[in-house]
Amino acid sequence: MQKFIIEGKNNQSQILIGEKIGNLNKYLPAGKVIVITDANLMKHYSSLFTDFITIVIRPGEINKNLSTIESIYEKLMKLDADRSTFILGFGGGIVCDISGYVASTYMRGMNFGFVSTSLLSQVDASTGGKNGVNFRNYKNMIGTFNQPQFVICDHSLLNTLPEKEIRSGFGEIIKHCLIADEEMFSFLENNIKSALSLKPEIIEKLVLSSIKIKAGIVNIDETEKGERRKLNFGHTLGHAIESVSGLTHGEAISIGMVSAARLSNYYKLISEEKTERIEKLITAYGLPASTNINFNIIFDRLIKDKKCDNNSIHFILLDDIGKATIKIIKLEELKIALKDNKNHRRKSP
Amino acid sequence: MQKFIIEGKNNQSQILIGEKIGNLNKYLPAGKVIVITDANLMKHYSSLFTDFITIVIRPGEINKNLSTIESIYEKLMKLDADRSTFILGFGGGIVCDISGYVASTYMRGMNFGFVSTSLLSQVDASTGGKNGVNFRNYKNMIGTFNQPQFVICDHSLLNTLPEKEIRSGFGEIIKHCLIADEEMFSFLENNIKSALSLKPEIIEKLVLSSIKIKAGIVNIDETEKGERRKLNFGHTLGHAIESVSGLTHGEAISIGMVSAARLSNYYKLISEEKTERIEKLITAYGLPASTNINFNIIFDRLIKDKKCDNNSIHFILLDDIGKATIKIIKLEELKIALKDNKNHRRKSP
Repeated sequence: MQKFIIEGKNNQSQILIGEKIGNLNKYLPAGKVIVITDANLMKHYSSLFTDFITIVIRPGEINKNLSTIESIYEKLMKLDADRSTFILGFGGGIVCDISGYVASTYMRGMNFGFVSTSLLSQVDASTGGKNGVNFRNYKNMIGTFNQPQFVICDHSLLNTLPEKEIRSGFGEIIKHCLIADEEMFSFLENNIKSALSLKPEIIEKLVLSSIKIKAGIVNIDETEKGERRKLNFGHTLGHAIESVSGLTHGEAISIGMVSAARLSNYYKLISEEKTERIEKLITAYGLPASTNINFNIIFDRLIKDKKCDNNSIHFILLDDIGKATIKIIKLEELKIALKDNKNHRRKSP
Repeated sequence: MQKFIIEGKNNQSQILIGEKIGNLNKYLPAGKVIVITDANLMKHYSSLFTDFITIVIRPGEINKNLSTIESIYEKLMKLDADRSTFILGFGGGIVCDISGYVASTYMRGMNFGFVSTSLLSQVDASTGGKNGVNFRNYKNMIGTFNQPQFVICDHSLLNTLPEKEIRSGFGEIIKHCLIADEEMFSFLENNIKSALSLKPEIIEKLVLSSIKIKAGIVNIDETEKGERRKLNFGHTLGHAIESVSGLTHGEAISIGMVSAARLSNYYKLISEEKTERIEKLITAYGLPASTNINFNIIFDRLIKDKKCDNNSIHFILLDDIGKATIKIIKLEELKIALKDNKNHRRKSP
């Protein structure tokens, strides 16, 4: 088991990679604990929760909204939850985002922790202290920055995941390599089969390096005023694509990453050859490199995205594989540049 | 003009006592500013907002809820508000609580400031970084701790306030004296008429001393783990009374303060004579000392109150006039003690 510490403004967060779910009690406080999880996970893991009070939410991005939040507040009141109650989010990114937001706003804040059950949340969503929900179909419009006291990443929980969700997780792993770790990028190129089959030592290595990159960045810039924006590589377009399509998060940001790589090439930051290497890796992990959704629909969504400040956007490009750079681009210029390189329209192979 | 600084975890807050609304622009950033205010204030002060984008909410405690919050989120989206937009709450406690919560959760946080327009909010609500709304009729159930960048307390704004609201403000001023400043308590006893007629130099002195006490406590304990609980003197019962009655906040906490003073006497912490002096001052400022609402109804509400941790409560008592103390009391014991001293049932004179 490996441990990383994130020093948040409000509290310290321990990220426990390779910790076993059987050791959960070591991390829970003595008082009342309420578990928030979703109906799918409850089917697989109900035996883990026999000693806990649980709140079970409906699964899926469609339920990541304020009405789910209100229904949880109501249940907490019925359960006589107070400031001393501890919230345990048991699930993937959606459950963690929702549990973290509830814990940050109910009675002005309760302590909370996560057991991260998906590859995507183990390498990304559960770490870093962002929480929140979608609003009127816009992604993560409402939320706070607040660190969980701990995040348990038990890789054995990944075995029940559908293949689509596994691939979604690889999207974020590839992102972390692209922005900060060329060596891991090569490692991903050389271990496609064993990674996709979730070979334990490969997964542990990948989760570890992803969290190392993320924790390092969050420790410098928790509330995303600068450096943390690099973690949005592929997400500016990706979130917009996710909102207007039926694609998973990992699929949508994969298209976003390929577009951002092509844009980096358009701005003469990386070579055509490296751009193709990126696209090749993404498709090798079963992820799409493009979409046939109308570009204007995607771009209109992007404008509403929370990373826009006034009329320009902090767009993340690559100076190299393993080296991200932040470029402030006027929205009009971005639109022209993206249209020019036209990769958003290329069909996925 | 006098300035106090509150050092919050997330940001620093300047409390500007006696600053003029005409100097507002000095404190606003260069970018987009959106003003949140209520319909009553808009009637009096619309001329101040001709250069601003405004969101006008319905006045009153009944609208301090998540549905008002959602309607503001929607308006912010329509106005293309983003993380760089500055929110200015212009109003009393309700407007400040709502604006602060919106600014803390929209896009995971925007910068914000307040112009505090009521005596109650000048001496209390606008300072200290608590924000939030009621939920299912329970007070301040949902919220965060987050400091505004500034709070402007221009006493000339108080002249349009109804008398009932002025009295409500004196409730909190009396509270601050009771927990931390015996000299100011005597000052209040000796200046009843000029205080109630809002004589400028008297009001300035009272607001100043109230904020000094509050800022001092908040700087020690922003998120109410210990010392800050003292600011809840009179509020544990007071909030419960406010929820189940038609009384103003100041009226309800006045009854709560008299009960807490009597309870302090019951526990032999203060003399009968001092208890009567407290009750006399409260009634002299036109505030009630008791209610005829059924005690069990009030107590049931209290149990749901956010200051309960498990089955005991941090109840604030007085060691003396000007000296509060925190006592952890089991709920059953508290119920008996309050019933025993029976002051909750005494009719207001």
